[in-house]
Amino acid sequence: MADSLSVRHLLGIKDLNENDINLILDTAKEFKEVINRPIKKVPSLRDITIANVFFENSTRTRLSFELAEKRLSADVVNFSASGSSVKKGETLLDTVNNILAMKVDMIVMRHSSPGAPHYLSGRIPANVVNAGDGTHEHPTQALLDSFSIREKLGDLAGKRVAIIGDITHSRVALSNIFCLQKQGAEVMVCGPTTLIPKYMSELGIKISHDVREALNWCDVANVLRIQLERQQIKYFPSLREYSMYYGISKKMLDDLDRPIVLMHPGPINRGVELTSDAADSHHSIILDQVENGVAVRMAVLYLLAQM
Amino acid sequence: MADSLSVRHLLGIKDLNENDINLILDTAKEFKEVINRPIKKVPSLRDITIANVFFENSTRTRLSFELAEKRLSADVVNFSASGSSVKKGETLLDTVNNILAMKVDMIVMRHSSPGAPHYLSGRIPANVVNAGDGTHEHPTQALLDSFSIREKLGDLAGKRVAIIGDITHSRVALSNIFCLQKQGAEVMVCGPTTLIPKYMSELGIKISHDVREALNWCDVANVLRIQLERQQIKYFPSLREYSMYYGISKKMLDDLDRPIVLMHPGPINRGVELTSDAADSHHSIILDQVENGVAVRMAVLYLLAQM
Amino acid sequence: MADSLSVRHLLGIKDLNENDINLILDTAKEFKEVINRPIKKVPSLRDITIANVFFENSTRTRLSFELAEKRLSADVVNFSASGSSVKKGETLLDTVNNILAMKVDMIVMRHSSPGAPHYLSGRIPANVVNAGDGTHEHPTQALLDSFSIREKLGDLAGKRVAIIGDITHSRVALSNIFCLQKQGAEVMVCGPTTLIPKYMSELGIKISHDVREALNWCDVANVLRIQLERQQIKYFPSLREYSMYYGISKKMLDDLDRPIVLMHPGPINRGVELTSDAADSHHSIILDQVENGVAVRMAVLYLLAQM
Repeated sequence: MADSLSVRHLLGIKDLNENDINLILDTAKEFKEVINRPIKKVPSLRDITIANVFFENSTRTRLSFELAEKRLSADVVNFSASGSSVKKGETLLDTVNNILAMKVDMIVMRHSSPGAPHYLSGRIPANVVNAGDGTHEHPTQALLDSFSIREKLGDLAGKRVAIIGDITHSRVALSNIFCLQKQGAEVMVCGPTTLIPKYMSELGIKISHDVREALNWCDVANVLRIQLERQQIKYFPSLREYSMYYGISKKMLDDLDRPIVLMHPGPINRGVELTSDAADSHHSIILDQVENGVAVRMAVLYLLAQM
Repeated sequence: MADSLSVRHLLGIKDLNENDINLILDTAKEFKEVINRPIKKVPSLRDITIANVFFENSTRTRLSFELAEKRLSADVVNFSASGSSVKKGETLLDTVNNILAMKVDMIVMRHSSPGAPHYLSGRIPANVVNAGDGTHEHPTQALLDSFSIREKLGDLAGKRVAIIGDITHSRVALSNIFCLQKQGAEVMVCGPTTLIPKYMSELGIKISHDVREALNWCDVANVLRIQLERQQIKYFPSLREYSMYYGISKKMLDDLDRPIVLMHPGPINRGVELTSDAADSHHSIILDQVENGVAVRMAVLYLLAQM
Repeated sequence: MADSLSVRHLLGIKDLNENDINLILDTAKEFKEVINRPIKKVPSLRDITIANVFFENSTRTRLSFELAEKRLSADVVNFSASGSSVKKGETLLDTVNNILAMKVDMIVMRHSSPGAPHYLSGRIPANVVNAGDGTHEHPTQALLDSFSIREKLGDLAGKRVAIIGDITHSRVALSNIFCLQKQGAEVMVCGPTTLIPKYMSELGIKISHDVREALNWCDVANVLRIQLERQQIKYFPSLREYSMYYGISKKMLDDLDRPIVLMHPGPINRGVELTSDAADSHHSIILDQVENGVAVRMAVLYLLAQM
């Protein structure tokens, strides 16, 4: 195994080769040990300055990156778009070049436009980490999901993972599909026709509209969230019906009579896509995903800083 | 005196025994010396991560906690509810469990709902510090108030403290009453009938509707703020009349012909509950309260971290 | 040259003497070397706590100060007015006194009211740095602009600097005029009559309404931004016409047949006051200004901390 990445930026899983993914996940395993020690800090990125540049709010992802950065002893500055020069008509490239001119070494960026971090990465000298670009890629989420599955079930080759719910509006589905496929897992997406984009049929994955079929098929069910706050999305045809046809309960998981791993990228809408008893059941590794997120982000930042 | 607390969380003064209060106040005295040295930092909480989780804005309390945490060398992350997953339908417990999964050791929480930190404390492994739960308790404010009185007048036993103003909508009145009583002080609340909740009559305190009676009676006048920003509160019957009947001037304090200590939890509305000359008079220890707040919060965090 | 400042606060360039300016710019040169080393930090302000108190949003200026503070190893706390006690009716002096009571050593303040930092500085024990008080002074911007010119052209004595654009609503024009004059430079302001305040005629500077005349005259063109976000400003008579008559293109600069230095305080409105090719041309030192901003602010904070 090569001991460095093939890329200078983490823009998407699509650009990673199998070795990159293994290297990140193996390094994350070491960092997970670090953050479970009484002394959770390592001096690895002392003298590296990282700017978290969030053009969209994402408290949870920002907090996970910030903790990862602090535990690597990096200097951290947060830049959020609200009230900033972005609103004053400045271009994205000018905003980021300004931040970099202040001697910032790495940019972690959340942006609503697909491709925004790719656009930047070709034009600036700093390492760029994509923390979500619209509904395109969210690579660290996919990596932490794979880490969590591997931790529970071992090697992903041959494992069956069903991604269930609102695929269309999810920022994590696509990165997960790429990441799982590159590791040899089989992938199914499951949801109502209206919430599965047409291009899914070209990705070499199974497609189902029946949640019980998905659960019967898979080793891992990664349940996506219904985005209650985005009222303009029409949920099949109502939220109540979505929940009736696609909501997952503990009983449905228990009745399978074989082990199944339940995942969710959070935040959960209890009673909508998952019942409370499912979310809190022994099937669930939802909080492990959150813990692993810090370790995986430490690994990504650490490895990119060597490039 | 026992040298550790009887509690794992600081939820309210109600749960503390006399020894707890003395231990916190004595420890705070040592930390006050620390923050008045040229080197204001101690390494006590190095390797402890504290999240300030504020579901309501409170710049002043958040700043005081943040400085306390930094001077104890803790790692600090701030989480505010605006724009966060709370708005996306996540439960309080899920939000906090997510933060804890990122290996956070202590939670300092401000919440609008009475009992929110108590609810949490029984369900999570971290220490919880209540930084205000609605109009219920705000224990660190009561402790810093007691610290400030003790610093000025010595032992609280037998001292007379009048809490004057809008008792109903205050987040600090109840904790102060409990804290003062547990130390043997006599307490009076004073304000218009409409601003004193009925259950006050069950707390073993004096109740007055005459501010001059209160001033004549007390050693310490703790004047609460009129909440100008909450327009729905009807102030007896108008703000101007409130100020006429309950506002306190320097002359009123000078005319007492004996020492009186003037306190206010801030922010002050000059010209409403206090005239400017009263707030700036030699009677006032208002800025001492603010300084002592950092020392008291350092003591609370330090002692809970040992539990 | 005296090796300490003649002032305890940096309120405006007006209060500085020539030695102060030289001392700051020479010190900044040393700090620029520091932040271009692999290890960008110095321990100079360890044990100093600095509060960035921003009553107006200014992401870019706040970020530059924050990085300067962190690279000096100061403890940093950020206080922004939104949601704070300022909205609860507290006076400016009470707000700042509260922050200081928490043992803060220096205040960096942005405020919309001209004179606000001057008012404070006479009433509080901490050093005050004005990070912009309305359209009055913004001294660190003027110092970083002078630093950037000096770096490019050497000593400012006799150099010709034209400040071009919306002088009336700019927060940087006045400080720049004072700073350039104190160093012996000649200054011209250029813009439509409606955007040049009448008192400019009393400052001993040239005034022009013809951008080509200004470009022909000057060694340095400092182009100010059109404030697109402030819709109430009427731009001569329309934005499109402003751009036609006062916008600067690369061709206009190339055609001068002698070197000219192009500056802009940012954020740039590409296609309005500057074309994209002008902003990105070899004439431009716009990103150097940003980089130098951190070094100049380090120098200011470092020198004030000795006072």
